Amino acid sequence: MAEKTNYKFSVAPEKVDFMLHATIESLCSDLLNVAGVDAKHNGISADVLMQHNRSWVLSRMAVEIDRQPKQYEEYSIDTWVSPHASRLISPRNFELLDGKGKQFGRAVSQWCVIDFEKRMPVSLEEVDSLFEGKFCDTPSPCETPRKVRGIEPTIVRRHEVRYSDIDFNRHVNTMRYIRMMLNTLPIEYLTENRPLRLDIHFAKECRLGEVLTIGYEQRDNLSLFEIRNGDNAVACTAAIEWR
Amino acid sequence: MAEKTNYKFSVAPEKVDFMLHATIESLCSDLLNVAGVDAKHNGISADVLMQHNRSWVLSRMAVEIDRQPKQYEEYSIDTWVSPHASRLISPRNFELLDGKGKQFGRAVSQWCVIDFEKRMPVSLEEVDSLFEGKFCDTPSPCETPRKVRGIEPTIVRRHEVRYSDIDFNRHVNTMRYIRMMLNTLPIEYLTENRPLRLDIHFAKECRLGEVLTIGYEQRDNLSLFEIRNGDNAVACTAAIEWR
Repeated sequence: MAEKTNYKFSVAPEKVDFMLHATIESLCSDLLNVAGVDAKHNGISADVLMQHNRSWVLSRMAVEIDRQPKQYEEYSIDTWVSPHASRLISPRNFELLDGKGKQFGRAVSQWCVIDFEKRMPVSLEEVDSLFEGKFCDTPSPCETPRKVRGIEPTIVRRHEVRYSDIDFNRHVNTMRYIRMMLNTLPIEYLTENRPLRLDIHFAKECRLGEVLTIGYEQRDNLSLFEIRNGDNAVACTAAIEWR
Repeated sequence: MAEKTNYKFSVAPEKVDFMLHATIESLCSDLLNVAGVDAKHNGISADVLMQHNRSWVLSRMAVEIDRQPKQYEEYSIDTWVSPHASRLISPRNFELLDGKGKQFGRAVSQWCVIDFEKRMPVSLEEVDSLFEGKFCDTPSPCETPRKVRGIEPTIVRRHEVRYSDIDFNRHVNTMRYIRMMLNTLPIEYLTENRPLRLDIHFAKECRLGEVLTIGYEQRDNLSLFEIRNGDNAVACTAAIEWR
């Protein structure tokens, strides 16, 4: 059995929003960076899978943030991999800890292995040998990602995918979806630094030059989002629960 | 006389573009962060000026980048303040150094002190006592910022200022102008990691909710940009010289 691993961060000025707190996007970006570095450390990174023509794809993520740390604040992230949740889903967990070790957030991410050429998920059994001794038996720190469905947008914005949005595959960088969603939200939701839970589901890749539509619906304490690609297919859905 | 001061960085994954090199925006952002931290270290930061109802405003910047470092690469930035260039302009210089200390970029920034209420520049003589012993006599590492004028855009994009664009004053974050400009450029210019020189002039502040127009003209090896605010006044101009 493996242990949790800890990675240290601080809130650099380029990570903060107009309230001088780390953005949700930057905290989620740190989680994904930790996932990448820790997977590499454990020999289960995308590079290793690539040798078998496979790669990791992030399918869903649930992130709870009790407070967004301030500019220059120190924090750290604990991470560990749980045993497969199904034939297709590998969960990775995170705890966000302040400078004194007090938890201020937590997350569960669900990853699939895809065949890089067919762009289709494959059974985790195919790469099971890589995971030997890599699981940690600490339970996930929060509820696994919830389904986000039935969104009826009342506000719709458009966004053309440009240079600053894309990753090395020329697909929209996963974290940009969060930015697009928050940019659609009335600014008042982002002035209070309220505790929140984000559930996000990545369904399709979006490409350079596509014009995306970002739909937003407010339903009580839930901000619901749906991003559609240039063919009007759902690419990403999310819910922010304000607590 | 003061000495140069050195600040260390590495290219975190959120700083890279689709070529897995640090973006021009992220390198310029590092320069500004260094300016802020070093000014604080020297007792000439915005906080100190604020006590006198004054603040720093970045007016112009010239940045030469010979190559954009790769993801995870270590680098550092040397910075120093030169004696005032005029009654209104305080220059700060930078050198970008790779892990072996070899220079791969350099910059000169020109700052004004403004009266925070009148939003007007004031004579540096008013704050001269703060600068005592803070100047370094090393010459600027490159030509000072050039004027950028007479742009005749052939491509125009629009951008509404949203949450992720603004700083704590709810004005567009200085570095976002660079992002908007690069997002207007044909992607081919950004695949080659060519040496470049950027001259940028910040003329007016832009606010949350304003719809900006980003005009672009290619003139031989010069990419010229002009950003206008919601009142069609020029807010920012820039030239990228591809070398």
